[in-house]
Amino acid sequence: MSKPQQIKLSVPIKIMTRMLNKEVVARLKGGVAVRGVLSAYDGCMNLVLDNAAELDNSGEPLARYGRILIRGSQVIYVSSAELTA
Amino acid sequence: MSKPQQIKLSVPIKIMTRMLNKEVVARLKGGVAVRGVLSAYDGCMNLVLDNAAELDNSGEPLARYGRILIRGSQVIYVSSAELTA
Amino acid sequence: MSKPQQIKLSVPIKIMTRMLNKEVVARLKGGVAVRGVLSAYDGCMNLVLDNAAELDNSGEPLARYGRILIRGSQVIYVSSAELTA
Amino acid sequence: MSKPQQIKLSVPIKIMTRMLNKEVVARLKGGVAVRGVLSAYDGCMNLVLDNAAELDNSGEPLARYGRILIRGSQVIYVSSAELTA
Amino acid sequence: MSKPQQIKLSVPIKIMTRMLNKEVVARLKGGVAVRGVLSAYDGCMNLVLDNAAELDNSGEPLARYGRILIRGSQVIYVSSAELTA
Amino acid sequence: MSKPQQIKLSVPIKIMTRMLNKEVVARLKGGVAVRGVLSAYDGCMNLVLDNAAELDNSGEPLARYGRILIRGSQVIYVSSAELTA
Amino acid sequence: MSKPQQIKLSVPIKIMTRMLNKEVVARLKGGVAVRGVLSAYDGCMNLVLDNAAELDNSGEPLARYGRILIRGSQVIYVSSAELTA
Repeated sequence: MSKPQQIKLSVPIKIMTRMLNKEVVARLKGGVAVRGVLSAYDGCMNLVLDNAAELDNSGEPLARYGRILIRGSQVIYVSSAELTA
Repeated sequence: MSKPQQIKLSVPIKIMTRMLNKEVVARLKGGVAVRGVLSAYDGCMNLVLDNAAELDNSGEPLARYGRILIRGSQVIYVSSAELTA
Repeated sequence: MSKPQQIKLSVPIKIMTRMLNKEVVARLKGGVAVRGVLSAYDGCMNLVLDNAAELDNSGEPLARYGRILIRGSQVIYVSSAELTA
Repeated sequence: MSKPQQIKLSVPIKIMTRMLNKEVVARLKGGVAVRGVLSAYDGCMNLVLDNAAELDNSGEPLARYGRILIRGSQVIYVSSAELTA
Repeated sequence: MSKPQQIKLSVPIKIMTRMLNKEVVARLKGGVAVRGVLSAYDGCMNLVLDNAAELDNSGEPLARYGRILIRGSQVIYVSSAELTA
Repeated sequence: MSKPQQIKLSVPIKIMTRMLNKEVVARLKGGVAVRGVLSAYDGCMNLVLDNAAELDNSGEPLARYGRILIRGSQVIYVSSAELTA
Repeated sequence: MSKPQQIKLSVPIKIMTRMLNKEVVARLKGGVAVRGVLSAYDGCMNLVLDNAAELDNSGEPLARYGRILIRGSQVIYVSSAELTA
């Protein structure tokens, strides 16, 4: 997928460039968490994840989606995929 | 239904073009989820779904509507329809 | 009641024109749902419903009002009236 | 009390002119409902109610106030007083 | 304490002038209620209360403060002190 | 710590000048309360507290921090330290 | 990681400069708390934490991440790491 615009992004937002095409976990409002490959983002933290799954509290998939568009205002955090313990 | 304006949409929002006229699932604030055919959207993520249903926690229809207009500020995510397991 | 301004409304908001003078169901924040005849709206999704009722979880009227003004920022979705099963 | 400014109000907000000096019920965020005589409002839906009462879930007064100023951003809906069944 | 600016306040906000130096009850988000003497306010409904107390559900003081600054965006309503029954 | 800018602050916000270098209690969204010495603030009510503690419901320290930066949008109220009963 | 822009930050936000490259605890909306080394921030309080962990109510790690990007609007407070009792 095309690269996001590199203009006017603050330093924290810019680190998402390094997460592109990698698996990330996003924690969202309303107790929702999703995992997938980050294929696009913008400066509002709107995110596109491919091969995505919504996760339950123990991190198991609740529902699987080919592609998911997440509204940035609902994002609490985005992380590189969880480390194995 | 007419096509949305292609102007000034960020890369993530633009992927909704590929969801037009297809079935999507939208998770909304307040624990609400809806499913339907995406017939229009705009850059605020306001959505119009046709042949829509509000879903319960297990994905079963709670109520059916011919057409539903969803306020973008209430959207957590929009996805292509759930994959079969 | 007078028609809303047709200026600068996005495509999704414009579909409310077809809901004017018809019965709609609006789901609002705070677990509130209302039903009534849509007599006016604007681009913020502020809504006026006539012959309105607040509904309980099973869709039965909790309270009836001659007219109700709903603040757009509280709207989750507006739909054409529920289809019979 | 003096009349509100009639300038730049959208059609839905303008219907509050007809509610002036009449009893209204306002449902607010946080599960709060109030009843009183609408003596002033503005385009943000800030409301002044006189002879006001906060209501419990069954519509009975919890607390009575000579005058109450409600912040518009907290309003879910404003209605003409509830119809008798 | 100095008087607030009288400029550009809408009619509803202006009624707080009559509440100055009187005891008020403010209901805030998060189930919080406070009582105290209104000594300053501004057009955002930021409030300063003196001889203030946070109240429990039955209106009894939970905590007392010499002075409290309330953020306007958290205010649900401000009222003249509760009427005796 | 340096003094905040004195420009364009409304009357309520300005009273925080008198709270500088004194112990305050701040009630925040999400049921969080903190206590500490106010060492800086700005017009958005962003606060810096030194020798800070997060408090439980009975006002006892849950966690202690050398310094804490509180986001203004999360503040419900700031008060001078609680009066002894 | 590169230093944040020093322009137009209010006094409270500027204190994060002293937290750079140190361990911090951030309390977020939705009952979420995270701990990690602050490697970047901006004036919206968007934060990047390295060697991060989401914490449970007793401060124990629930999940570990190499890097986490936190959306500023979800931050309640950021603190220097908790003091030992």
